[in-house]
Amino acid sequence: MALLDALAERLREIVGAESVISDPAELATYDCDGLTYHRATPGVVVLPDTAEQIAAIVRACADAGVPYVARGSGTGLSGGALPRTDGVLIVTSRMRRVLEVDAANQRAVVEPGVINLDVTRAARPYGYYFAPDPSSQQVCSIGGNVAENSGGAHCLKYGFTVNHVLACEVVTPDGEIVELTEGPGYDLLGAFVGSEGTLGITTKVTVRLTRLPETVRTLLAGFDSMERAGAAVSAIIADGVVPAAIEMMDALSIEAAEAAVSCGYPPGAGAVLIVELDGPASEVDAQFERVKELCAEAFELRVAADDTERGLIWRGRKSAFAAVGRISPDYIVQDGVIPRTMLPQVLARIDAISRERGVRVANVFHAGDGNLHPLVLFDGSEAGAGERAEEVSGRIIDLCIEHGGSITGEHGVGIDKVEHMPRMFTGEDLDTMQMVRCAFDPAGLCNPGKVYPTPRLCGEVPGRRKGVHPLVESGKADLF
Amino acid sequence: MALLDALAERLREIVGAESVISDPAELATYDCDGLTYHRATPGVVVLPDTAEQIAAIVRACADAGVPYVARGSGTGLSGGALPRTDGVLIVTSRMRRVLEVDAANQRAVVEPGVINLDVTRAARPYGYYFAPDPSSQQVCSIGGNVAENSGGAHCLKYGFTVNHVLACEVVTPDGEIVELTEGPGYDLLGAFVGSEGTLGITTKVTVRLTRLPETVRTLLAGFDSMERAGAAVSAIIADGVVPAAIEMMDALSIEAAEAAVSCGYPPGAGAVLIVELDGPASEVDAQFERVKELCAEAFELRVAADDTERGLIWRGRKSAFAAVGRISPDYIVQDGVIPRTMLPQVLARIDAISRERGVRVANVFHAGDGNLHPLVLFDGSEAGAGERAEEVSGRIIDLCIEHGGSITGEHGVGIDKVEHMPRMFTGEDLDTMQMVRCAFDPAGLCNPGKVYPTPRLCGEVPGRRKGVHPLVESGKADLF
Repeated sequence: MALLDALAERLREIVGAESVISDPAELATYDCDGLTYHRATPGVVVLPDTAEQIAAIVRACADAGVPYVARGSGTGLSGGALPRTDGVLIVTSRMRRVLEVDAANQRAVVEPGVINLDVTRAARPYGYYFAPDPSSQQVCSIGGNVAENSGGAHCLKYGFTVNHVLACEVVTPDGEIVELTEGPGYDLLGAFVGSEGTLGITTKVTVRLTRLPETVRTLLAGFDSMERAGAAVSAIIADGVVPAAIEMMDALSIEAAEAAVSCGYPPGAGAVLIVELDGPASEVDAQFERVKELCAEAFELRVAADDTERGLIWRGRKSAFAAVGRISPDYIVQDGVIPRTMLPQVLARIDAISRERGVRVANVFHAGDGNLHPLVLFDGSEAGAGERAEEVSGRIIDLCIEHGGSITGEHGVGIDKVEHMPRMFTGEDLDTMQMVRCAFDPAGLCNPGKVYPTPRLCGEVPGRRKGVHPLVESGKADLF
Repeated sequence: MALLDALAERLREIVGAESVISDPAELATYDCDGLTYHRATPGVVVLPDTAEQIAAIVRACADAGVPYVARGSGTGLSGGALPRTDGVLIVTSRMRRVLEVDAANQRAVVEPGVINLDVTRAARPYGYYFAPDPSSQQVCSIGGNVAENSGGAHCLKYGFTVNHVLACEVVTPDGEIVELTEGPGYDLLGAFVGSEGTLGITTKVTVRLTRLPETVRTLLAGFDSMERAGAAVSAIIADGVVPAAIEMMDALSIEAAEAAVSCGYPPGAGAVLIVELDGPASEVDAQFERVKELCAEAFELRVAADDTERGLIWRGRKSAFAAVGRISPDYIVQDGVIPRTMLPQVLARIDAISRERGVRVANVFHAGDGNLHPLVLFDGSEAGAGERAEEVSGRIIDLCIEHGGSITGEHGVGIDKVEHMPRMFTGEDLDTMQMVRCAFDPAGLCNPGKVYPTPRLCGEVPGRRKGVHPLVESGKADLF
């Protein structure tokens, strides 16, 4: 650890001794992000205040050949911010200033440690808000939203974080501070957003602000079965309505939410739908009537009369993940996505697998965009239960891939789904993506081991076509 | 030319003799794209039918060390498809099949040579259309739309091509066929769209289809002055209305359009606004009344009663560029963008420069998103007129940069604006972008000379920080 000790000393020179943590007990509190079953105590933690400090930290790591991982609030669910025992964890939580709110041009400039909901709080007096709304929005930070391209219930209508980021100041793995923007040249901004911390560290984010809607109307519909609720979703989308959100929960997740927050969902429901419309009152009122007609098969329709009732409807949904702890000692939160048209088939298959393996699965999901969040329940104290749950969780990902979907909808690949990447992409596809990683980070120190399986292009002789990469041919192949 | 002759022979083996053009007279017809004052006769033209043929062509070029440029219909306005005299021009116009229309999932799969408007024609029977609508949409092809990230009048509400492309099959510069999609891993799709043909050649595009709006309402407002029209634009946006389009034309462009297509715009207008709303009838009707109120300063308000009248209103706008030929023997189409809030200042400055230099400038633009298209008029037969026009055109770009805007709004950098890139980006910013280019195309054969100034990273010893790129330090610097 002499190498890390020397590096910690260098970091103290950069940020001051009070901003470097190397005490083992303190380090242990940083050993995971929201995916708690992967843990690793970081070698050193550093808490910078400025972009210049981060650039100096990255250069110090590069000089020492030590890997580093950046994190904000650490709420990610794929282990993207899992630290390295042999490396530095760069925590941006002290960089939480809202630098500018430019309402006339519908944008704000914030530091990466700013909490998602605080952007909305800063913009609301001007009549605006920040649209991406992950369930963790009260605690998650913008830097992490950028790294993971975070979604949320309202991304059906408003898009993901990438649609709301206009520019990022970034420290690249070679320790330079660059500005990535929309505009001429490559859209590196788009490639950076969602790169899960592997291309650099964002130090300043210009976000798009969205006008607060004139009206919001929220409906809770109780159905006998998932099939009927699913049919209503299809009917709404087919009708051309684009709700701000359509969320679905099954009986098991309703039971859990009820136990946790007493949200008062319709008793005995096999499924509930939450449908929210927002926008100009004239449009919302007309479309809301249409949505109610399209939910005719519901045995109960409840319309939120005010913000309090609306809040209650959402409380059940937003608490669902945590609430599952009330009905099961352990659970896995899965995240996959399928074409919306495949929802009925895939839900039926999940149900069949659940019965066959005797493993309960609670389904909570963003129905409008086919983003499943099955919660696979188990009791870790029971022999083999964890393994069976893992198997069912894996089978659900198989189903997503088989049905033309993806291994992750919004939680990212991180450390959790690295192994699944070759099932979605050919070797050539992965090579092409990793060319970019190697271009940014040839030494492989920036959040290594995340997103991509083995680093095929940097430091290994690749099986690429001869004569095409002249540099490979000329014997310099170790660079790719 | 022995090298090119041998390569042409190889290309004939790949695509058949009838699909390779090497006759000088025939080659000359391919010597420019829509930016006609840059011309270069291609060394060889090849017209492939399949992705596999394109991959083989690219590999043949790589083996021979010969540069290549891809083009579709060749309607681009920045010279992005300008051929190389020493290279191959790969023309995708024979690849024009609409392979699939999947209305249930709101997508279509098309070949790159498909004409923009033909996607809408294929989708319309299902109630959908393809939203990006460059003025050239009757002739421009999807491959070019992807390369340039094309915009259009309705991009204010619907976004650019990048927001409507879900996947691209791409032949990379190393001759592999890869699939770029949204989903896990880097958003290379986003970086590829708008990369102006420098990262590879798209061979199949999956586009998002947009539901045909229930209602479209179009208004033509005549104002005394640009200032008053501009104030109306600001008022509409500030009110929270998002029109499908807000277009503005000044007196000179109105005169030109009138001369060309007799569009019947209000006589004597100093400016006209075209405001179009689309969406659900309930919303459109309410907002349309609001827009009319906000255009209270107009001396004439005309609402299109039907599709014929709507077509007439748009005909004036869409013909404006070509129409300028009626009032001036020569002109430069400029393309810049500024924050919408800067419109009044910048328009006043353009007017001042125009008067000061005695060069007429017709202003036609996408007012809603601050995208200016000044037409700088001159008579090429008059000594020094071309130079003065170039100077004014350049000054307009200066204004855009000074006011926090960009050197191009939607026409791209191409060959035309390469020299301006260092004025928008630092050396580090450009280096970072070019790292990606070098990763894809280390030999520099894929549309070289476009977008970026000197290729600083491939094949040159860069002035990058020592100790950060260990590969540079180790003497292998020629790779960057």
